[in-house]
Amino acid sequence: MPATLDIAIVGATGRVGETLVEVLEERNFPVGNLHVLASLESAGKSLPFRGKNLRVREVDAFDFSQVGLVFFAAAPATTLAFAPRARQAGCAIIDLAGALDAPAIVPEANASAFATREAISPCSPVVALAVALAPLRALLAPQRLTVTACMAVSSAGREGVQELARQTAELLNARPLEPQHFDRQVAFNLLAQVGKPDAVGHLALERRIDEQLREVLELPLLEVAATCIQVPVFFGDSLTVSLVNEGDVDIGQINQLLASAPGLELVEEAGDYPTPVGDAVGQDVVYAGRLRPALRGEREVNLWLTLDNVRKGAALNAVQIAELLIKDLA
Amino acid sequence: MPATLDIAIVGATGRVGETLVEVLEERNFPVGNLHVLASLESAGKSLPFRGKNLRVREVDAFDFSQVGLVFFAAAPATTLAFAPRARQAGCAIIDLAGALDAPAIVPEANASAFATREAISPCSPVVALAVALAPLRALLAPQRLTVTACMAVSSAGREGVQELARQTAELLNARPLEPQHFDRQVAFNLLAQVGKPDAVGHLALERRIDEQLREVLELPLLEVAATCIQVPVFFGDSLTVSLVNEGDVDIGQINQLLASAPGLELVEEAGDYPTPVGDAVGQDVVYAGRLRPALRGEREVNLWLTLDNVRKGAALNAVQIAELLIKDLA
Repeated sequence: MPATLDIAIVGATGRVGETLVEVLEERNFPVGNLHVLASLESAGKSLPFRGKNLRVREVDAFDFSQVGLVFFAAAPATTLAFAPRARQAGCAIIDLAGALDAPAIVPEANASAFATREAISPCSPVVALAVALAPLRALLAPQRLTVTACMAVSSAGREGVQELARQTAELLNARPLEPQHFDRQVAFNLLAQVGKPDAVGHLALERRIDEQLREVLELPLLEVAATCIQVPVFFGDSLTVSLVNEGDVDIGQINQLLASAPGLELVEEAGDYPTPVGDAVGQDVVYAGRLRPALRGEREVNLWLTLDNVRKGAALNAVQIAELLIKDLA
Repeated sequence: MPATLDIAIVGATGRVGETLVEVLEERNFPVGNLHVLASLESAGKSLPFRGKNLRVREVDAFDFSQVGLVFFAAAPATTLAFAPRARQAGCAIIDLAGALDAPAIVPEANASAFATREAISPCSPVVALAVALAPLRALLAPQRLTVTACMAVSSAGREGVQELARQTAELLNARPLEPQHFDRQVAFNLLAQVGKPDAVGHLALERRIDEQLREVLELPLLEVAATCIQVPVFFGDSLTVSLVNEGDVDIGQINQLLASAPGLELVEEAGDYPTPVGDAVGQDVVYAGRLRPALRGEREVNLWLTLDNVRKGAALNAVQIAELLIKDLA
């Protein structure tokens, strides 16, 4: 095992990129040199890491042969543009945009699928669902999963956060509201979609949830019905989950499995439940609550999940994948 | 047919009660005398009706034999306390709290079930689902319905609305937040439940959705999985809906039926969708959008619904039931 690994982060000035730097430090990841890269506009900024300030450099001028691992926390187009260079330089790649053709990994669910030197850290709803459902595979044969994913504005990056803050302030001051980043008012409102639907009516995010979740859970035949809506929450994605099993379910056994599941915090106390603001934000675990059977029928289990979309939903999960890589290199 | 009907509204100073008064006027309902009743604290206030001010009187002192119809827009306990008096006085009763043992009616779905002189106007999510799904019964044999109902704070009455406004202002002014009406911060947050769950984990509202919906749609065997969450939206309930049919579905035919469904406005344009703030609030119809098939499989239809929870979700639906009663009396 190399004592340390030299690392580059492409898209380092976005919120996920910044959190990657924080998480690498927090988890004492054996980083040698850390190169923080971004587009020309962001070059020259600096990011704190281990008591020093790292200067952000332009990705286009970077020589990838200097590093062994690259995190792509940029837009899909940027990832597609620069990944070939990183690959040619022999780097391992962890793609947080889901742009590349590589296995999607959530270490709590499919660590053993990490066999190549490239991996995708899947979208935040898939991380939440994988952490919560992976331990149930020992007990259940999940047939159908219906999910409503309530996406925080931060999943649209800094612009999303600024837009909700600006809209809220304007409304409270009775000023006219002109939506900029989102296509309409998101403050005190719900938007029925996140991004544009395709011709059939599905969102790219809904398709990604279906594909990545079946892959990560290694349940290729699971029927996934996902709806993604945009909610006026700054940080923390939340999901309502309804799972239909092939046979009858035993909620007591499911409770036991979830209570000891890695990466999951099950709120069990009667009447209590986790929320994005009160629990998930800033935390490493996925929170689960409202575990309950169907109103009628015996084959169903219902659940509420919430997680920090920037942290476990993106940066932390990517660093956990890098920890698998380090183990692999050992 | 009597030229006019004398009417009492119990709970007239709540937002639903006030909207009842407005809707009766707007729809030219043949009201003779209108008595607006409330608890002792609200007595003495006044409500505008047909250019006059109606003085709010105390319900406890009211002689129900003066009227032919009573709307109960009060808490279940108040409804249970005063309904026997109204019944004994020979009044027809429309219960907006779902407290009484009477048929639940959504005129677009089961007008013909209105055979007695008492009826329940069901909860807002059931009104939305009934208006949207009733026309599909001609085409489909719905087997399973999974719903996430995103409830506006106004479903908790004026206190809910004031609490979201107060919390938002305090957060924007960086003042400490102490939740009062809700059990925690609802501004920029999602609460995983509306009210307290029972021992098994279900909410009263989730049970009511299951029971009332099967009744109103006359589909007693429909499997309903409902999750109700509290969202930081002032007015307008929204629902994500996933329906599994016994056989294959034809989205084109469903689109056609919904486009001409009474009480429903289907947003069909590609990429467009209705929102509570932008569309539903203040309107009489239920808005539908994001109509789409399953990602894989042929037996599923997905849909987004949003409606004014105070208006069509409560007051307007109750007045529509009263219009059936008037027809009956004719």
